[in-house]
Amino acid sequence: MKNILIIGAGKSSSALIQYLLKTSEKEALFLTIGDIAKENAEKLINNHKNATAIILDVFDKKQREEQVKKADIVISMLPARFHIDVAKDCITFGKHMVTASYVSDEMKALDSFAKEKGLVFMNEIGLDPGIDHMSAMQVIDKIKDAGGKMLLFESFCGGIVAPESDTNLWNYKFTWNPRNVVLAGQGGAAMFIQEGTYKYIPYHKLFRRSEFLEVNGSGKFEAIANRDSLKYRSVYGLDEIPTMYRGTIRKVGFSRAWNIFIQLGMTDDSYTVEASENMSYRDFVNLFLAYSPSDSVELKLRSYLKIDQDDIMWEKLVELDLFSTEKKIGLKNATPAQMLQKILEESWTLAEDDKDMIVMQHLFGYEMNGKKHQIESSFVVLGENQTYTAMSKTVGLPVGIAALKILKGEITTPGVQIPISKEVYEPILKELEAHGIQFTERTTSYLGYNPNNITG
Amino acid sequence: MKNILIIGAGKSSSALIQYLLKTSEKEALFLTIGDIAKENAEKLINNHKNATAIILDVFDKKQREEQVKKADIVISMLPARFHIDVAKDCITFGKHMVTASYVSDEMKALDSFAKEKGLVFMNEIGLDPGIDHMSAMQVIDKIKDAGGKMLLFESFCGGIVAPESDTNLWNYKFTWNPRNVVLAGQGGAAMFIQEGTYKYIPYHKLFRRSEFLEVNGSGKFEAIANRDSLKYRSVYGLDEIPTMYRGTIRKVGFSRAWNIFIQLGMTDDSYTVEASENMSYRDFVNLFLAYSPSDSVELKLRSYLKIDQDDIMWEKLVELDLFSTEKKIGLKNATPAQMLQKILEESWTLAEDDKDMIVMQHLFGYEMNGKKHQIESSFVVLGENQTYTAMSKTVGLPVGIAALKILKGEITTPGVQIPISKEVYEPILKELEAHGIQFTERTTSYLGYNPNNITG
Repeated sequence: MKNILIIGAGKSSSALIQYLLKTSEKEALFLTIGDIAKENAEKLINNHKNATAIILDVFDKKQREEQVKKADIVISMLPARFHIDVAKDCITFGKHMVTASYVSDEMKALDSFAKEKGLVFMNEIGLDPGIDHMSAMQVIDKIKDAGGKMLLFESFCGGIVAPESDTNLWNYKFTWNPRNVVLAGQGGAAMFIQEGTYKYIPYHKLFRRSEFLEVNGSGKFEAIANRDSLKYRSVYGLDEIPTMYRGTIRKVGFSRAWNIFIQLGMTDDSYTVEASENMSYRDFVNLFLAYSPSDSVELKLRSYLKIDQDDIMWEKLVELDLFSTEKKIGLKNATPAQMLQKILEESWTLAEDDKDMIVMQHLFGYEMNGKKHQIESSFVVLGENQTYTAMSKTVGLPVGIAALKILKGEITTPGVQIPISKEVYEPILKELEAHGIQFTERTTSYLGYNPNNITG
Repeated sequence: MKNILIIGAGKSSSALIQYLLKTSEKEALFLTIGDIAKENAEKLINNHKNATAIILDVFDKKQREEQVKKADIVISMLPARFHIDVAKDCITFGKHMVTASYVSDEMKALDSFAKEKGLVFMNEIGLDPGIDHMSAMQVIDKIKDAGGKMLLFESFCGGIVAPESDTNLWNYKFTWNPRNVVLAGQGGAAMFIQEGTYKYIPYHKLFRRSEFLEVNGSGKFEAIANRDSLKYRSVYGLDEIPTMYRGTIRKVGFSRAWNIFIQLGMTDDSYTVEASENMSYRDFVNLFLAYSPSDSVELKLRSYLKIDQDDIMWEKLVELDLFSTEKKIGLKNATPAQMLQKILEESWTLAEDDKDMIVMQHLFGYEMNGKKHQIESSFVVLGENQTYTAMSKTVGLPVGIAALKILKGEITTPGVQIPISKEVYEPILKELEAHGIQFTERTTSYLGYNPNNITG
């Protein structure tokens, strides 16, 4: 039997573990699933005979080494900053490793060691990053192989609530780490390039510069530009491409309302508010409005941000009970972002039978034989329930499939890598299709940024 | 003769050196003025017999120690981050020290050593911080001594161009480090308290939340909230005060136009722009606007930020040649902030005979014998020319006066300190008056934030 060590049995591990347990009989796998909270692992194993749950503290060197030593491959589902010690152990004991996280500089530094020992260190093999890399590279390689020249690459991805569970005015619920949602877009200007022109959007304008997109059969969405689309030019071998844009998908109207929080300063995570604990939601709002002895918090906010009384954005705020004098924040020395998260969690937490949804779309513009073309490639996946969410499926399945293929010697090129080579993406995308993660491709005429050649 | 070592002969040292040279005969002083560029020091000494210019590299330990050893007191006019090595030498060799900079944590850590050796380490004794501390504490102590209870403290200060040299639409020129002006307000939300309510303004709203103030005889100004007014509550012994606000003064209309740069993202100093060197001013603006094959940069900007065609803000942009295709940035790998600074310096540099102006105003609200009162205290100082600016006077004079009084044993309380005790501020403010830096006090009825008791 082959031993797989999985570290981290949180939300995004459920589909991964389900997949590996299902194939464990046929492939002769045994899973050791470690988590600080053993019951998380036990719940996902559900008494399956080919797995065992253990308490694993990733900072306990001795225990960590012991477990890595026993494994044939290690999958770390921990937050990215916790991978590195595990990765070093994998080098020491000669084990392959798989993560769904971005390659950190520390991880990258292990590349030559991994190559020397013939180890595959596969990273960024979840959803985004992960499926996006693989599905993009498949089409890009196909276009290049046919002699085409890439003109445009745009890629959009988002985790939102499924239409059948979409019950609030924001068309949004937390299907993913709420903290990441509150802080989304912070840390620097969004950068991309359009028709050869660099574009930079500061955080405070980001949610007003959303773009619309249509996804076949699922309607209209909007996208907010990701932090750095420029770096993907070299990653995808598209250094000369004039248009490169990556964005995060939300339902239409979300960004314009979210912008209210940004404008007020509510998403700031850099300072703590004195006396936050006993503040009402209303007090929280008032922190960001000018003092007035007479005017209401409501009117001050409307006047400040010029929100008309019939604007649906206003109802979105009211729906969150943002002006309540009764509801308390209840968090000591909290940052505005933490206070806002508290308020949103009360409204946006998934109900027991709510389902999530993942939407991804790529646009590829290219020139071939003197003509311009465009390919649109999309997929939509719904979650099954709150454990087997679309998010856990789309993150966990590629991780599990990659781990198995590495174990079986089907993916062998060693080194610290991401899934952009044919050897990796072709078999994995093929197996993902069998699990319902299938891209629909559509060819259109080239739209670019000036489909009708308007010149002013 | 007493030896004074002055480190740094930049712009803000001119009035300091002039003052000390003038008193050098009477007080038997000899100045050693060190700078990396010896000619800076020589220019300010102008062959005066009681001073010598030396090349001094503050990172050259041996030379620094040698000079500190020879001095009776050391004045560091270097940027704040360079003080600490000098300060440690002063401890080692038992020398008093004076700076106009904020007390850093490292500087604060020297307090017990300074006290042990009976050394006065006077900091924050320039204009702001400096004159603001002293003039505020004088009135606050007076009110408290008379049995009053402080209700409100607001303090405003700004370095701008003198009315006679005010020749552009912005009513602004660089009379101070341009980089600091471009980055002003960054690094975190502005915090203050009004009528017991905490208020936080994020950077992207800061320049739209300016407040107006009247300064006797000098007309109307506007103020932008400083970063952290809350910490001054404990510094000034006003822990219970319900209103505390500090702001930076500009001419009316500046902030609203400056906000355009912030909204666009032009003041961002956190990333560099590819190919910045050969960009025109127009290209620079276009970095922050959506791509369009047909629309002009002008129209895109107007539409994006909703600037009406008859808005004077628009003329302010045009005045800067912001839409020029001819003028080039000429800076390699520059940040947006550096690129903006380059553009502004071309328009806002002082002409040879331009004069600057310093404006300061405090408002003190208090209750005494059951009645509420308010004191308004202001000063305005004009520069003489481009060397003896109002800025150099108001920064350099208090530094020089303090140094002399420490030398003469008139200020003796040892330790790392700022000028908030009577022993320090009374004699210094008195001598500043003789140099034309004189506050005008005016008593009004208490205005607070609800002078007419409006209740809505």
